[in-house]
Amino acid sequence: MRTVIKNVIVVTMNEAREIFSPGYLLFEHDTIIAAGPMKELTEEILAGASQIDGKQGILMPGMVNLHTHMGMIPFRGLGDDCKDRLRVFLIPMENKAMDEEMVYLSTRYAAGEMLLSGVTSVLDMYYYEEEAARAMDEMGIRGIAGQTVMDEGACDFSDPYEAISYGERLIKKYHSHPRISACIAPHGTSTCSSEVLKAAYSIDSSYEVPFTLHTAEMDYEMDFFEKEYSMTPAEYLDSIGVLGKDTLAAHCIHMTGKDLDLFKERGARVAHCIGSNTKAAKGVAPVTEMLKRNIPVGLGTDGPASGNTLDILTQMKLCADFHKNETKDRSAFPAEIIVSLATIEGARAMGLHLVTGSLEPGKQADLVLIETQSANMFPVYDPYSALVYSANPSNVEAVFVAGECLVKDKKLVKTDLDGLRNQLFQKMKGTDFQKHMGKTE
Amino acid sequence: MRTVIKNVIVVTMNEAREIFSPGYLLFEHDTIIAAGPMKELTEEILAGASQIDGKQGILMPGMVNLHTHMGMIPFRGLGDDCKDRLRVFLIPMENKAMDEEMVYLSTRYAAGEMLLSGVTSVLDMYYYEEEAARAMDEMGIRGIAGQTVMDEGACDFSDPYEAISYGERLIKKYHSHPRISACIAPHGTSTCSSEVLKAAYSIDSSYEVPFTLHTAEMDYEMDFFEKEYSMTPAEYLDSIGVLGKDTLAAHCIHMTGKDLDLFKERGARVAHCIGSNTKAAKGVAPVTEMLKRNIPVGLGTDGPASGNTLDILTQMKLCADFHKNETKDRSAFPAEIIVSLATIEGARAMGLHLVTGSLEPGKQADLVLIETQSANMFPVYDPYSALVYSANPSNVEAVFVAGECLVKDKKLVKTDLDGLRNQLFQKMKGTDFQKHMGKTE
Repeated sequence: MRTVIKNVIVVTMNEAREIFSPGYLLFEHDTIIAAGPMKELTEEILAGASQIDGKQGILMPGMVNLHTHMGMIPFRGLGDDCKDRLRVFLIPMENKAMDEEMVYLSTRYAAGEMLLSGVTSVLDMYYYEEEAARAMDEMGIRGIAGQTVMDEGACDFSDPYEAISYGERLIKKYHSHPRISACIAPHGTSTCSSEVLKAAYSIDSSYEVPFTLHTAEMDYEMDFFEKEYSMTPAEYLDSIGVLGKDTLAAHCIHMTGKDLDLFKERGARVAHCIGSNTKAAKGVAPVTEMLKRNIPVGLGTDGPASGNTLDILTQMKLCADFHKNETKDRSAFPAEIIVSLATIEGARAMGLHLVTGSLEPGKQADLVLIETQSANMFPVYDPYSALVYSANPSNVEAVFVAGECLVKDKKLVKTDLDGLRNQLFQKMKGTDFQKHMGKTE
Repeated sequence: MRTVIKNVIVVTMNEAREIFSPGYLLFEHDTIIAAGPMKELTEEILAGASQIDGKQGILMPGMVNLHTHMGMIPFRGLGDDCKDRLRVFLIPMENKAMDEEMVYLSTRYAAGEMLLSGVTSVLDMYYYEEEAARAMDEMGIRGIAGQTVMDEGACDFSDPYEAISYGERLIKKYHSHPRISACIAPHGTSTCSSEVLKAAYSIDSSYEVPFTLHTAEMDYEMDFFEKEYSMTPAEYLDSIGVLGKDTLAAHCIHMTGKDLDLFKERGARVAHCIGSNTKAAKGVAPVTEMLKRNIPVGLGTDGPASGNTLDILTQMKLCADFHKNETKDRSAFPAEIIVSLATIEGARAMGLHLVTGSLEPGKQADLVLIETQSANMFPVYDPYSALVYSANPSNVEAVFVAGECLVKDKKLVKTDLDGLRNQLFQKMKGTDFQKHMGKTE
């Protein structure tokens, strides 16, 4: 089954950053076969292929969400402006109301939301991740299910080593799956003992899956390592031998130049969550300094309890505005760089850059078509600029993952959003979530 | 003609900040008659009224865009990351390609874009404003056409006093119009002589329309006043007698505590353009300090050449993230305050708070219905939170201005967007705009 998408601005994000405008892309089954300018679209290429007219839209690689918590949709918008939201809402409700079915239904919903906004690859990090993996698989998205592990235990396991064993079983279960894989994702630098961190790292790195954890994010975390070890969190991770090429550190807000040099030396990567970090008043990660050192950086939304929406387009605009303003240079952090973080660089940080993140022959057909007919999308002079400064998730017209069409005419193809929402809402009924909803009634 | 909108979360933005959830709102012709909880929606209220089922959406006051340049749609996305975009793109192309018809067609398009995103009131500031006023009137939006005046002249008038006379004629022409009015809008503190500023101020204040101008925005502006007068721009405006209750200063990024005290004393107001300011790396205006002093502040998108999109929802999220991060307090600048800036406080700063900005009996029926069925809008615990942190312009389901339905089912009612775009695009053909479009082809 061959498909040609034609009459589009093809933003390849290949090494040469080629743009074909107007251009076409051909894929067969799950794989991209060719992309080029329209004038090279021959009868031979079209032969036997189904054709999609992109109507001058922008065809870009599927976006990568490098850090989120898909099971937390029920928490979205709960206590947004509350000083101690974590202890007032999150932890008590997670322990009381979160179970396997909630994770499954929430992850399905989150995958639907992400697909509708053009995210085709996601690194999830939460509890009961076997359910998350199953939900992502069913929804057709590309994903890594990160089983979270914490010393004090969580809603799924009271013993962190049980969670680690469960995570390892999950890694094995999905080891040869074409789209889904798994990893063990320790909660954070200070919420796991060095033994737990080392055990998780040893397993993740042996399977070459991301060892991902919250790093250099919280004030209490910074104080703890300063007081206990006279170290930064990054130095601490390195001192116990868990900072390596499979380490994917989320947030990294509070990083010294030395920390960044260490990341560079060890090959560690960063998930940058600008929206979540700034909404929580935690500061702006030194991404300009990371990029100077060629540290792989991608974008993450963080969970719906923190960043609220799960689309990467919103993060792209925030990225531009915050980093330009930080560097006091309107030409800094240009749109092309931001699109690269959202696509090929995100894929690199996720360990999937040979598979996805750019539109190149041989890569998986993970594609997003952005329409340019909506009010906010006219005119288009430069497609990078239009994607970063003009687009919003509602401009996502069609989405393919591994060649499968999952979004068409701005709607999910394999399932419907109303069904996903209703199932999750039914599950939330009778729990504390419903009680809080009642507050406004 | 009476209309009831029912089964909605009514966010009134009245003095008591009442929310009716679920609630209803009744309006007749152009005026709101009543709003309240659903249980008080009697047969008597429903009698003879047409009914709209809001399906658990959020009904809010129409949003206010306090500072923009509607004629500049052709510039959107042109040179976004260029260091000296103003001199490389804007000024030369404005002088060459901007004429009455371009302003008319661009303003029609911009009004359409704003209506689709829930903006019902706008203060425009550009050239050939008689065309802008006509376009806004035809589109049904509520607006003030601000005729820009500059010492060195512009695309419409080479002599600033001619522009002032034109502006005064425009003020008179629209003086008794129910939705449209006009004002003279000097370009900025340093691009107009004190004589020009005083002449404009004298006319604007005699008609009680906003005297609006770019203030404390540019580095060169700050340097100029420091060097020439050892003053800040705010002090300078006050020294020449043009800082008063009708003064609406756009941007106000670089303000001292003394400047803010002066604004408070004189009753001057501020149009805060967070997206434009930060994208241009100019800094974050001290809005927390303005609000402490009860200075009227509203939100502006700035023009499409600066802020790209013209919706206020995007500005609301940026506002939250930037000001929380500035104050290092996640509970600062809560969603309710931000919604107030986007509605009633914006209306106050525009001088229209007795007419619009809140859902109260006697006020104009300027209404926005935000649907909560899209992926990003579930769940809703707190409507303010949902509006600021979750919503985007595509969630705007219906819009009424002065009781007239201008957006229904997310589409313009009186005209169609394709037509607006095609007309503007035809006009752009053969100009430098088209040449730049060709660059990517």
